[in-house]
Amino acid sequence: MFSNMAHMTSTRVRMSPDGRREQLLELGVRLFATHSLDELSIEMLAEEAGISRGLLYHYFGNKQEFHTAVVQRAADDLFAVTAPTGEGSPLEQLTGSLERYVDYVVANFNGYVSLLRGAAGGHEGLREIYESSRAALTDRLFEGPVAQEAAALGLTDTPVVRLLVHGWAAFTEDVVLEWVRDDRGITRKELLVTLSVSLPGILAPLRDG
Amino acid sequence: MFSNMAHMTSTRVRMSPDGRREQLLELGVRLFATHSLDELSIEMLAEEAGISRGLLYHYFGNKQEFHTAVVQRAADDLFAVTAPTGEGSPLEQLTGSLERYVDYVVANFNGYVSLLRGAAGGHEGLREIYESSRAALTDRLFEGPVAQEAAALGLTDTPVVRLLVHGWAAFTEDVVLEWVRDDRGITRKELLVTLSVSLPGILAPLRDG
Repeated sequence: MFSNMAHMTSTRVRMSPDGRREQLLELGVRLFATHSLDELSIEMLAEEAGISRGLLYHYFGNKQEFHTAVVQRAADDLFAVTAPTGEGSPLEQLTGSLERYVDYVVANFNGYVSLLRGAAGGHEGLREIYESSRAALTDRLFEGPVAQEAAALGLTDTPVVRLLVHGWAAFTEDVVLEWVRDDRGITRKELLVTLSVSLPGILAPLRDG
Repeated sequence: MFSNMAHMTSTRVRMSPDGRREQLLELGVRLFATHSLDELSIEMLAEEAGISRGLLYHYFGNKQEFHTAVVQRAADDLFAVTAPTGEGSPLEQLTGSLERYVDYVVANFNGYVSLLRGAAGGHEGLREIYESSRAALTDRLFEGPVAQEAAALGLTDTPVVRLLVHGWAAFTEDVVLEWVRDDRGITRKELLVTLSVSLPGILAPLRDG
């Protein structure tokens, strides 16, 4: 949307408040990729955007609201980027979504880890965003065109399958974070194959039993 | 070790400092079952034990040291209680360990959840205890007599299997916590069967592929 901060500053007078807030939010999301929430201060954003702290408080109220807005936008981005393409078998589509999830975590590691820490550590606002984001990501497996074929993976919509898919999301998150921290000689491709077959692997006993 | 606090108080003069600290620690662990770390104050322990706060500070220094000691002891208890019995097939032994893990989480839910929250939220001392406890629980799958037969479950000791077992521990923890919060009509037995076959389910593609 904008190529650099100089451009943004030069267009200040022509932008609507909403457009301006949007630009600042996008900048926050980009900084959030490589900075934890603790590091991501109003001061840092003001400096990066080349505007005053007062103006930032005008748009976001306080640091907490700014963080919430950034994290919500980052969660929306993750949801959009991992959308199934609608092409290929259910397993191929799952692998594709996982591939984009892994790339997202790699590219946004510091912010992502700090979100998980905040959400798990009892920060109510972050926990809500994290949990509804995770629910949206896994609900997708049971909805829409993919779900028509997803029974092939064992994804029938029952309470026990829902519970196991919830756990599989925790599994995937844990494995990907561990792998990004130390790949242990496991290639990205090996990781993706292993992750995508783990879901039918977990569900197979239900389907077969 | 002791049946009630009155007994404990009456034996005060005869007990060694180590024995006394041990009793207080055990009381702390019992309170930790039904109270979060936030709730588990020196004041509460002093009241339950019928002794002065000053004496408790004498044994544990400060609240943080007391919490660390309680959590470490609880982790040791969990490790002991989930030890494989050495009887039955690897899958039966795994199911037995999982059964005792589930029972432990049910019986110690409030404390366990608060430990996870503290560990995930960036409390360094709790994180270390939690991670070494989890490592000890899963390392056991690769060591000792069980490991001799564990290849039947796909548990060969390779980096990718270690990574997947790490993720499986996150999966198990997530599924059990969710189930304790809301069992969704899933019986304890169904839960246990599903959890124990999930490990070979996750590992099967590696073994077969």
